[in-house]
Amino acid sequence: MKLYVGVDLGGTNIGAGVVDENGRILHKDEIPTGVGRPYQEIIKDMGDLIKKVIKNAGYVVDDIVSIGIGSPGVADKEKAFIVYANNLYWKHIPVGEELRKYVNLPVYIDNDANVAGLAEAVCGACQGYRNSVTITLGTGVGSGIIIDGKPYSGSHGAGAELGHMIVSVDGIECTCGNKGCFERYTSATALIREGKEAAKTHPESLIAKTVKGDLDKINAKVVIDAAKAGDEEGLKIFRRYIHYLTMGIITIINIFDPDIIAIGGGVSRAGDFLLDALNKEVEEHIFYKDLPHAKLCISELGNDAGIIGAAMLGKIN
Amino acid sequence: MKLYVGVDLGGTNIGAGVVDENGRILHKDEIPTGVGRPYQEIIKDMGDLIKKVIKNAGYVVDDIVSIGIGSPGVADKEKAFIVYANNLYWKHIPVGEELRKYVNLPVYIDNDANVAGLAEAVCGACQGYRNSVTITLGTGVGSGIIIDGKPYSGSHGAGAELGHMIVSVDGIECTCGNKGCFERYTSATALIREGKEAAKTHPESLIAKTVKGDLDKINAKVVIDAAKAGDEEGLKIFRRYIHYLTMGIITIINIFDPDIIAIGGGVSRAGDFLLDALNKEVEEHIFYKDLPHAKLCISELGNDAGIIGAAMLGKIN
Repeated sequence: MKLYVGVDLGGTNIGAGVVDENGRILHKDEIPTGVGRPYQEIIKDMGDLIKKVIKNAGYVVDDIVSIGIGSPGVADKEKAFIVYANNLYWKHIPVGEELRKYVNLPVYIDNDANVAGLAEAVCGACQGYRNSVTITLGTGVGSGIIIDGKPYSGSHGAGAELGHMIVSVDGIECTCGNKGCFERYTSATALIREGKEAAKTHPESLIAKTVKGDLDKINAKVVIDAAKAGDEEGLKIFRRYIHYLTMGIITIINIFDPDIIAIGGGVSRAGDFLLDALNKEVEEHIFYKDLPHAKLCISELGNDAGIIGAAMLGKIN
Repeated sequence: MKLYVGVDLGGTNIGAGVVDENGRILHKDEIPTGVGRPYQEIIKDMGDLIKKVIKNAGYVVDDIVSIGIGSPGVADKEKAFIVYANNLYWKHIPVGEELRKYVNLPVYIDNDANVAGLAEAVCGACQGYRNSVTITLGTGVGSGIIIDGKPYSGSHGAGAELGHMIVSVDGIECTCGNKGCFERYTSATALIREGKEAAKTHPESLIAKTVKGDLDKINAKVVIDAAKAGDEEGLKIFRRYIHYLTMGIITIINIFDPDIIAIGGGVSRAGDFLLDALNKEVEEHIFYKDLPHAKLCISELGNDAGIIGAAMLGKIN
């Protein structure tokens, strides 16, 4: 059984795990990232963490095939550089070279959303399918595009940003500087924004009552639970949410025609309530009605997708 | 020098040519498609045309590596089936099997827009680039997506329909049944629609004057020429057109991050006037401003792209 290390490099924590070739985590651990320190320090800590998880899993470095890193932002896969990672304040960091000072193994890097998609393709909801798309509905909307079993991220590593498809020209302003991006309408943040507005204008709504008028307590679950309970304001927001999510998924189908689309992130915890509504509206808007089209499902690996997918970069390379 | 036959199967004509491995057409010819006849008759005519162009190019069937066909609609590449081609009234037609009754060579099929993109990648505007997208601004908006040198059309052959990205949820109704598709705003048809409206409400505009009030004579060139001449109505339409085209191109960059995007079709004859306006607005909306991004250019092969790209299916397979 071949073994790999996967590293989930986040703005808050660095997670690392020893993963077998089937995508099973044998042992994992995490440390705070300590953003703001020199990158050399952070990468030294990452090296220590990697050595620690290998040891605690009962192996030595020589048992491991490679290290894979899932990083926010843009990665140069070939040079194992992080080109640009906004929430680490990193630009052009030679992660592979630096990390090999501490653990002498091949290092692969890809974007965190891409490796999460890879994890779902290797051993999660998209297992057994050649072409898949995983979208993550959280603070923003992340996405991993798997073509022929490999993450696709374009010529400069900046692709697969489905959260920044423009679905409403001149629509709501996005953090990226454009207007009308998919994530403005389909992230958890969008549900919260609309939930707050509804609670303000409709203090009689279940959304307002659930948080006892404390608008800062409104999260995606509060809004979706209100919709589930049949609350008028909750339903209005949820239907609009499903409508925009459908239009994005139709666009993804018309562009990629994948075998399967997995939906992850906080909002996906709504499970069948989300999936049933989505399937119903997607069916109505499919272009080639006579042909098979992508199946929709909820992603399976949750937060572990980061470590697993990063580890699997070594398997597919 | 290896030789291939490329067939451009259209609703009006069937074109065929002998093409060398560099994508140069040695000889070509065409016949009317005669849509509505049994598919066996049409494919027999196609076989005769292929034999004729091989002979007139000075070769025999055994000199040819393979036949490639660019077809409207959806193709099953592996079985050499046309799954669905609306303007031929074809569904599930075993083109490869039928054609081999007349010319016994391997047969490859792909969508006509995909093969046009392949032609540009092999020997046109996108030559030398690994990942490219060609969009064709004509009656509709067609597109060919080339990933790692090969056309990408998804798991069921129904992808790469960039004309049906939804760029304006609940926007203008599209022939596909959805609303707000990219092609509703960026096809020649869109320019004509808006040109007619402007000519109606502004009979003093250059658009109305150019066609002497005969609205049926308004085409994309009339509208763009009015913009070039500084006509207020023409400029309004052109700016809006560039705005939507930019937003679609930004979406393409955020999704595919290709090396290059080629723009073809009737509207692309506006050349630098189109490209300069587009480059200016695209630069303003690029997400990762510190990274290199796709270059924009005008496609080079015009109508020959269909025959050349179809022929090249044999080269890449």
